[in-house]
Amino acid sequence: MDTNKNRFCVIMAGGIGSRFWPASRRSLPKQFLDIMGTGKTFIRHTFERFAPIIPAENFLVVTNAAYRQLVLEQLPELSTEQVLCEPIGRNTAPCIAYAAFRLKAQHPDAVMVVAPSDHYIFDEEEFRRNIESCMEFVQQRDALMTIGIRPSRPDTGYGYIQTDAREEIAPVASFREKPDLQTAMSYLAAGNYLWNAGIFVWSNRTILAALERHLPEVYRLFAERADEFGTPREGKAVGEIFAVSPSISIDYGVLERADNVYVRSSDFGWNDVGTWGSLYELSPKDSDGNVVPERIQTYETTGCMIKAPQEKAVVVDSLHDYIVVDTPDALMICPRSREQHIKQVLEDMKQMDDGRFV
Amino acid sequence: MDTNKNRFCVIMAGGIGSRFWPASRRSLPKQFLDIMGTGKTFIRHTFERFAPIIPAENFLVVTNAAYRQLVLEQLPELSTEQVLCEPIGRNTAPCIAYAAFRLKAQHPDAVMVVAPSDHYIFDEEEFRRNIESCMEFVQQRDALMTIGIRPSRPDTGYGYIQTDAREEIAPVASFREKPDLQTAMSYLAAGNYLWNAGIFVWSNRTILAALERHLPEVYRLFAERADEFGTPREGKAVGEIFAVSPSISIDYGVLERADNVYVRSSDFGWNDVGTWGSLYELSPKDSDGNVVPERIQTYETTGCMIKAPQEKAVVVDSLHDYIVVDTPDALMICPRSREQHIKQVLEDMKQMDDGRFV
Repeated sequence: MDTNKNRFCVIMAGGIGSRFWPASRRSLPKQFLDIMGTGKTFIRHTFERFAPIIPAENFLVVTNAAYRQLVLEQLPELSTEQVLCEPIGRNTAPCIAYAAFRLKAQHPDAVMVVAPSDHYIFDEEEFRRNIESCMEFVQQRDALMTIGIRPSRPDTGYGYIQTDAREEIAPVASFREKPDLQTAMSYLAAGNYLWNAGIFVWSNRTILAALERHLPEVYRLFAERADEFGTPREGKAVGEIFAVSPSISIDYGVLERADNVYVRSSDFGWNDVGTWGSLYELSPKDSDGNVVPERIQTYETTGCMIKAPQEKAVVVDSLHDYIVVDTPDALMICPRSREQHIKQVLEDMKQMDDGRFV
Repeated sequence: MDTNKNRFCVIMAGGIGSRFWPASRRSLPKQFLDIMGTGKTFIRHTFERFAPIIPAENFLVVTNAAYRQLVLEQLPELSTEQVLCEPIGRNTAPCIAYAAFRLKAQHPDAVMVVAPSDHYIFDEEEFRRNIESCMEFVQQRDALMTIGIRPSRPDTGYGYIQTDAREEIAPVASFREKPDLQTAMSYLAAGNYLWNAGIFVWSNRTILAALERHLPEVYRLFAERADEFGTPREGKAVGEIFAVSPSISIDYGVLERADNVYVRSSDFGWNDVGTWGSLYELSPKDSDGNVVPERIQTYETTGCMIKAPQEKAVVVDSLHDYIVVDTPDALMICPRSREQHIKQVLEDMKQMDDGRFV
């Protein structure tokens, strides 16, 4: 337990993801919802996944100021100071820099795992074993570690990590953007490509050094105000830093440029649950391929996912491969194959009714 | 106006029609709804259609006891005594007998039009001219009159009336049940078949005599309690009569058996709005053949009718020839071609949740 004292978990929870509309809204994004119907929200699952190996007081949640209250409600184990508020989203590099500078003075020996708040992990025991082995690795070495998932299919919705070797922990050869199907199939065949889960492990010293070297502009913004972190002036400083900081991802800004990046190849079952379609793929289906609560009446209906308020009577006849999401103030009916179209729908909707449904 | 004093209108409003589920419910059937979106309910339209030619105090509405309050709310011009309550629906013959016996003592010279409460009439002026000509006809003759609509298409959803001659008012040769398409086409070609609109005109004397002759069992039930009509004992008498009365339509029980039945052939534009599909056919459509309020966003969607609460955001993508009806506690998605299936759906639904959604 002594080693745990220096172990921190940074949960990134600033997303305003629109792809689960109308279940998700700007005012209530995916990480605060129980989209999977497990009885717990994504961020709650994320917290509980790490809680056995990280002390509750060593969690930091970085989120938008608008969601501070939601975080504190859903994670009552945390104190207000553990919720770091971004005044504006600037992608993952400034988000991670914020957490690193918060820890710098008081916890110089911190080792941290950085994780999104809205992914799904199947085998949580195995996941924790992976994270702990990564933490041990970065405690002994100046390494930036990522988690790579051994791919089970040629998914075109994920980024890939190419490794040099097939060891459990190996140096990263390159990061690859979301590929087309042909490329994804060649990755699968090659065997040394892993899905980029967006989960990172490093010591605070290592990430600060990497930021200083590869993103000096971002680093300097934080470093100039380093004295104010952990003081009542932090909020003002962060507001001014984020106002001028570039918006850049940690992958693009740091990991793709650094030469001390390693990947832990893993097999704990992972899904970013990025779209209604991926939720459909994940979910148990009935014999007609439907993901439909029992109380919903379907006739001649196959391949559909239907969500509606518990207390509502729903009858669906002769629908094939659609997503139907009904909420008290919005209804969406959309083919599964057209779910990427939801973003356009929301753009259109922003023009209507002062965007109050978005 | 003097002749009007003996003119009565009997509105039959006892239907519990299930075919407009989920907009209609047993507790709020079609006649009390503004399904067409005109700003007025069907029964209100029906009342206003006759009001220029029938004094308000000469209306009788026959309905189920459960709907008495709805009738009085929607037709505040009527007094409580003008709402005749059936304890149980026994089809149209007992319903009409009830109205006839109510009028018998006080209005022996009454001439009445009997009309459903939930049909749509396009040209109301022309409609009233038709009804008035029928009323004049039955004032001079011992005739049972029906309104026949000159068919504009081989509709298989309506009953037909075969006439002997092509005069505006002609004796009825026969009543025909809903035909198959081939038969309907032959009716249209023959030229002497009319749609049976279920609207009747007769004097009270004539209908009472016809009931006595052709439905003596029903007639006798009412005749034995005739003294109690218009007294405080009427409700009890009606309860006992309906409890034992056969359930039979005026068409089958009287009109098909009588030899003094005439039909007024008419062309005022009529639709019984019997199903979601017929409402779709009736409604103005956009260039994609959709019947959809402007605030509903459709993409790649054609031939659909979509109804939802005014205040709800609705997005429909790539749907063709469906009916979508959303209400606060129920949602139905059904192909237009399968709307006859709704009855089965409701049967299934009666098994669920104590039938509270039916």
